Amino acid sequence: MNILVLNCGSSSIKYQLLDMAGEPLLLAKGIVDKITLPGGKFTHKPAGKATLERETPIPDHAAGVNLILEALVDGTSGVLRSLSDIFAVGHRVAHGGEFFSGSVLIDAGVKEKIAACGELAPLHNPAHLTGIEALERRLPGVPQVAVFDTSFHQTLPREAYLYGLPLECYRKHGIRRYGFHGTSHQFVAGKACRLLGWNVNEKKIITCHLGNGSSITAIDRGRSVDTSMGFTPTAGVLMGTRTGDVDPGALLFLIEKEGLDADGANALINKRSGLLGVSGLTPDCRELWAAVEEGNEEARLALDMLVYQVKKYIGSYMAVLNGADLVVFTGGIGENDHAIRGLVCREMQFLGIHFDDEANAGVKGKDKVLSRPGSPVTVMSINTDEELVIATDTLDLTRHLAR
Amino acid sequence: MNILVLNCGSSSIKYQLLDMAGEPLLLAKGIVDKITLPGGKFTHKPAGKATLERETPIPDHAAGVNLILEALVDGTSGVLRSLSDIFAVGHRVAHGGEFFSGSVLIDAGVKEKIAACGELAPLHNPAHLTGIEALERRLPGVPQVAVFDTSFHQTLPREAYLYGLPLECYRKHGIRRYGFHGTSHQFVAGKACRLLGWNVNEKKIITCHLGNGSSITAIDRGRSVDTSMGFTPTAGVLMGTRTGDVDPGALLFLIEKEGLDADGANALINKRSGLLGVSGLTPDCRELWAAVEEGNEEARLALDMLVYQVKKYIGSYMAVLNGADLVVFTGGIGENDHAIRGLVCREMQFLGIHFDDEANAGVKGKDKVLSRPGSPVTVMSINTDEELVIATDTLDLTRHLAR
Repeated sequence: MNILVLNCGSSSIKYQLLDMAGEPLLLAKGIVDKITLPGGKFTHKPAGKATLERETPIPDHAAGVNLILEALVDGTSGVLRSLSDIFAVGHRVAHGGEFFSGSVLIDAGVKEKIAACGELAPLHNPAHLTGIEALERRLPGVPQVAVFDTSFHQTLPREAYLYGLPLECYRKHGIRRYGFHGTSHQFVAGKACRLLGWNVNEKKIITCHLGNGSSITAIDRGRSVDTSMGFTPTAGVLMGTRTGDVDPGALLFLIEKEGLDADGANALINKRSGLLGVSGLTPDCRELWAAVEEGNEEARLALDMLVYQVKKYIGSYMAVLNGADLVVFTGGIGENDHAIRGLVCREMQFLGIHFDDEANAGVKGKDKVLSRPGSPVTVMSINTDEELVIATDTLDLTRHLAR
Repeated sequence: MNILVLNCGSSSIKYQLLDMAGEPLLLAKGIVDKITLPGGKFTHKPAGKATLERETPIPDHAAGVNLILEALVDGTSGVLRSLSDIFAVGHRVAHGGEFFSGSVLIDAGVKEKIAACGELAPLHNPAHLTGIEALERRLPGVPQVAVFDTSFHQTLPREAYLYGLPLECYRKHGIRRYGFHGTSHQFVAGKACRLLGWNVNEKKIITCHLGNGSSITAIDRGRSVDTSMGFTPTAGVLMGTRTGDVDPGALLFLIEKEGLDADGANALINKRSGLLGVSGLTPDCRELWAAVEEGNEEARLALDMLVYQVKKYIGSYMAVLNGADLVVFTGGIGENDHAIRGLVCREMQFLGIHFDDEANAGVKGKDKVLSRPGSPVTVMSINTDEELVIATDTLDLTRHLAR
């Protein structure tokens, strides 16, 4: 029951091969990078064997897929006897629009809908389709599944997913909150509940996925009811290089003042802003903390802003949910940055968060309870694993298929 | 001790004349409308006398000021024997930028700074200056005071007033959260505390000014620490015709999709959005409720969105303040719309709001406690009176001046 998990970006393919027969087992993972660009590179890490690294031009996604499949069955770096040992392929798909509220087996109709969402995710969805079609050609008959970043959030009520724009902006252009990181939010909420012996369908949970991209989600008895990213992944709390929420009037003022065109404005809010833009240094929290140690005030400001904005989202989702049983931190920052977690949870007793600074100290990449016993709201750090969600969904949707 | 309070807009002047010797006493109020436009109109309401209405071309603000001053001392509609009975003039000024953290006596330097903020409030600050200068000419020697919409919010900490944009956007262009409605937020917080026998400087208060423009403020022991409007009054919760918060990426998508220029984009988010844009009907809550009665779903949606967004801001400010002693509703909607207040406070027990639906039912324009006895958070409706704040500040800053 080997499942190949693919995340095809505009110029890269990340992959994992997992044996899902029993406890999930990672057989290999890697990345094909700089597709169509100078400096093409392939890195393949088979479990228990030496890493393979190759610099080679990669003219298109099909060539990238070929590299991966060859490496998986190669005499030296391979982990499979034959490609027929791949039971199914799962794809991470960035945008499912309003078409998909869950993962689906890919067929011609599904591909059409993924293409139709291309306008909503112009960098991602077309790349996913190229990957899907390259696999169809190389592994004919092997079922493929699409797992969407957006589908978990399709349960948001209208008052949460609509903006205060004229309603025709939604009807004509589909402008609404879609939300992202759905697989991660759903996964960590479920995992935390399993560890606590809770039923996720009975609990109110706020999940904070904080990484290079960050989003926070309110989950009411298993259903996403609000999330901080919006129509695009630019909204919400400030991120590595994205602004997070900004006064729309301020954005218009800035566009006019700086004479920005559409590309310039998009680059500004997505590539030059966030922790990088405020600090003027780096989008990386570890480097920001190092700069704080050296007395850098802008680095401190960037981190203070992140903490402050996460706090505010937690509070607003407590209002939405009328409380919370659990707050989960996950993602690169959420799992590894104990200082950020501690600052977010500081002075939140009124909201029922009794944080345990000792339990939190130094915790990196561990599933752990970080609140004090008896805290009305439990706080946990949970390691996310989006590939595992994709592999699990893929297996669930293909297991019954005769081979 | 008569104080003339003026609010000079781009094409109108609203005024009140208040006798502040003892309990404030309204002597007259009125409006000069359609200055420089066809259909100029002057309405003057002297206390205890017949209203004066005149249709007349009003070529400029100086002409408007003349109309007001003449009416105040007119044999029939007048309330003063002579213009020398005007002790001082107080002006509402929309934007004080980072120059003003309180009201000030107007001199040449103050006028320069109000002019320097003109870029931040291009429709308002130049009009205020024309009004100030017309008064200087007509009432030479009478002291004038500027009371700013923004100054109360100058106590926001950096993490609350900065956006996740590159820091140079703040340093170069002054792009930050300024906030508005400051006089109203400060006034209703103080008034509520007086009525409750509390010291405002010991309490945590969330004030919801909900009207045609709406803003919500977190006040920590008398100091504004966060507010929902931002660089412009477009941000925050959706309003009569303004969007409130929108994903910046969605705004850019929409601008490109609809081929909007700067004016078109500004008109979209400020004039065609909000309750009007969502309902497709009206920016007026009373009319929306009437439409709901007739089964209009978009009207219901617009109201649901307003309620939902106010709820979220209250929650986020409870996180900022680590709780709240008091939530105040004010403004046209906050004072008069019991249904909106009730829906906002529904299912907020976890946040300490035990709302009293019976106490709330039908309350319009009254200062009243709306929470149950023993509710951890007290909820009140409070009538705001921005003109009274302006008159009070004006008197405080001019009382000592020899005449």
